[in-house]
Amino acid sequence: MKTIVLKFGGTSVGSIDRIKKVTKIILNHKRKKNRVIVVSSAMSGVTNDLVKKSKLISNNFDKAEHDVLVSTGEQVACALIAGRLNHHGFSARSWMSWQIPIITDGPYSNARIDKILTKDLQKYLKSGGIPVVTGFQGINNHSRLTTLGRGGSDASAIMIAKFFKADECIVYTDVDGIYTTDPRLHKKAKKIKQIEYDEMLEMASLGSNVMQPTSVQDAKLNNIDISVKSSFISKPGTLITKSFKKKEFSNQIITGISSTKNDAKITIAGVKDKPGVAALIFEPLSKNLINVDMVVQNISLDGKETDLTFTIKSEDVKKTEKIIKGNKKISYRRLSFDKNLAKISIIGVGMITAPGITYRMFKALASKKINIMVISTSEIKISVLVSAIHVKKAIAVLHKEFKLD
Amino acid sequence: MKTIVLKFGGTSVGSIDRIKKVTKIILNHKRKKNRVIVVSSAMSGVTNDLVKKSKLISNNFDKAEHDVLVSTGEQVACALIAGRLNHHGFSARSWMSWQIPIITDGPYSNARIDKILTKDLQKYLKSGGIPVVTGFQGINNHSRLTTLGRGGSDASAIMIAKFFKADECIVYTDVDGIYTTDPRLHKKAKKIKQIEYDEMLEMASLGSNVMQPTSVQDAKLNNIDISVKSSFISKPGTLITKSFKKKEFSNQIITGISSTKNDAKITIAGVKDKPGVAALIFEPLSKNLINVDMVVQNISLDGKETDLTFTIKSEDVKKTEKIIKGNKKISYRRLSFDKNLAKISIIGVGMITAPGITYRMFKALASKKINIMVISTSEIKISVLVSAIHVKKAIAVLHKEFKLD
Repeated sequence: MKTIVLKFGGTSVGSIDRIKKVTKIILNHKRKKNRVIVVSSAMSGVTNDLVKKSKLISNNFDKAEHDVLVSTGEQVACALIAGRLNHHGFSARSWMSWQIPIITDGPYSNARIDKILTKDLQKYLKSGGIPVVTGFQGINNHSRLTTLGRGGSDASAIMIAKFFKADECIVYTDVDGIYTTDPRLHKKAKKIKQIEYDEMLEMASLGSNVMQPTSVQDAKLNNIDISVKSSFISKPGTLITKSFKKKEFSNQIITGISSTKNDAKITIAGVKDKPGVAALIFEPLSKNLINVDMVVQNISLDGKETDLTFTIKSEDVKKTEKIIKGNKKISYRRLSFDKNLAKISIIGVGMITAPGITYRMFKALASKKINIMVISTSEIKISVLVSAIHVKKAIAVLHKEFKLD
Repeated sequence: MKTIVLKFGGTSVGSIDRIKKVTKIILNHKRKKNRVIVVSSAMSGVTNDLVKKSKLISNNFDKAEHDVLVSTGEQVACALIAGRLNHHGFSARSWMSWQIPIITDGPYSNARIDKILTKDLQKYLKSGGIPVVTGFQGINNHSRLTTLGRGGSDASAIMIAKFFKADECIVYTDVDGIYTTDPRLHKKAKKIKQIEYDEMLEMASLGSNVMQPTSVQDAKLNNIDISVKSSFISKPGTLITKSFKKKEFSNQIITGISSTKNDAKITIAGVKDKPGVAALIFEPLSKNLINVDMVVQNISLDGKETDLTFTIKSEDVKKTEKIIKGNKKISYRRLSFDKNLAKISIIGVGMITAPGITYRMFKALASKKINIMVISTSEIKISVLVSAIHVKKAIAVLHKEFKLD
């Protein structure tokens, strides 16, 4: 008898009709004699509505009460799912995080699951019932409700899979898997059957919004295979798993191409090059929650001045300009901004052993006269900053170059 | 230092603006150096919306999940209230029933509070915090959420007042107290300063919708004074309390006059008069949740046949007719229905010792040519069934007769 964790995202349970549809998916798994644990997000839109209410109450709404407030969303979804399963004559019930309990640590609104006590739920599973567990939440050591931050329901599913030693963890969402690149940007994009955790981590943090990086990290750490599937259409999805031999495409080095948009580049030219100057520049940005992505520092010829270039999101440009101009701890010659940029990344564990990938990427882009502004690399990823108008063209040429078409 | 329980109903917390207003009321009590325990209902409309959802999921929605579903309403309201209190710089937090815990027994959706463990909340109170407790709910012995049925938040407030030995329990609602009669039906209606539990019980069960009878009963059993006040305007309310000497109006025998509408009268004429025949008639009505109110049975002259008259709500007439006609266990000559009736009741503990009240009531009604169809009496109440068109006239003449004007 297999134990399967089924996780449903907000759009999958976004209406009464959708809830009726996902209960059919659940019952299909149950009828195959599996032990099934359901984990659900809040119905889409509900959490945002609740957050909106909290902002009307206070522009500095208490974080603990925020978690009490928003955690009602999953409770509603789980009660409705369990009610529907009961309606079909199956034994099912909602399990709130405090009933299991799921113990978290870390701050409110951004807690992490520490441990899950399995005894009561295990007993319920053995009796044949289908537990429907509230995702995205837990309780802390003071028995207060906590939430897990963005993508928290995925984290709930993965940790439940871990603590219940599940054989499978299926994440149902509104897309039918991970693609070699965004199908809206390149029509030759293909669904990836199997992807390694580390590749998925790079894909996730680079704009493939299917799963939050922290959840992929949790899955990797606990060696849990995740299937990403659509709850809207019945199709094979993508398996996120540990490293494997890519038999099908032995010459396939790159797994996928991701892109971000709305990037902006900032260059601070003629910065006095003294130790710690980068920290002086980035500290106030970090304190203002401005996310700095790529960073390039040119070595100055005379050893006295340097040019520092980094990228941020376009919406942060004004704030960043203000902070840098008001920063009394640094001096520089010139500040320049460049908006409407995009970051294109090629990702694949294969590049660790395959030489010349960088060269092939640059040559392919050059063949289409696409200018590269900033480059950043990791073991399994190369990212380049280009003008946003070139995004589709860049994806197309790279998709072809690395045999993903 | 006094301990005060403040309970807010759904309309009192029905919007963000209302929640901001009630926090001011709470802080007024807190600033007087009281220990304050807040109990809140769900924002008005929320519970109905949730119930609507459950009905779309199943026409026989699981009762346990129903309680999980609707109990989110109070959780949202309490988080928002606590958030607003924090916004004003006061130490406050939401307390869900499972966190205290509030232990209930009885069936889902209609549980009753059995006991409240006070230790943790007591400690929090001593630290100066303002707890905001979810009304209307508790947990059962299996640690599952339960709800208390209609008016359950009042019951929560009263039981919390009991277990925390509160000096005062104030129920904030959308009316400013209990009136001698419905001000919409009689403009000379006056607010009652003080009313006895038993009188309130009769008022409540006879259509004064301010408090549910079960809550008044709980208050009576535990000897807890309840102040009913408006959260919309700052005015003295009505104190519901144990028996007291009515100094102000020593000649006032009647405390209030209540009325119901949409009553219907059913007469089953020529019923075979054998033992248990009334039970045979009423059993199937009770099973179909038809509430029978007044019952009158005439003694037959020959001892063989009897006429049975009873009242129900007009909306139940069709169903009742069908049930009686389909009832093979009884035989009768004729079935007649009379809709558009109303029940007028005069209530007052004073009538126990004052003779002639019935006579004065009938004479007053006769003076206005109001025909009485059915009469029912208790120790502290006399009810008469009249045509609905006479309601205002009947209230006016009785209000004057018993010196309530």
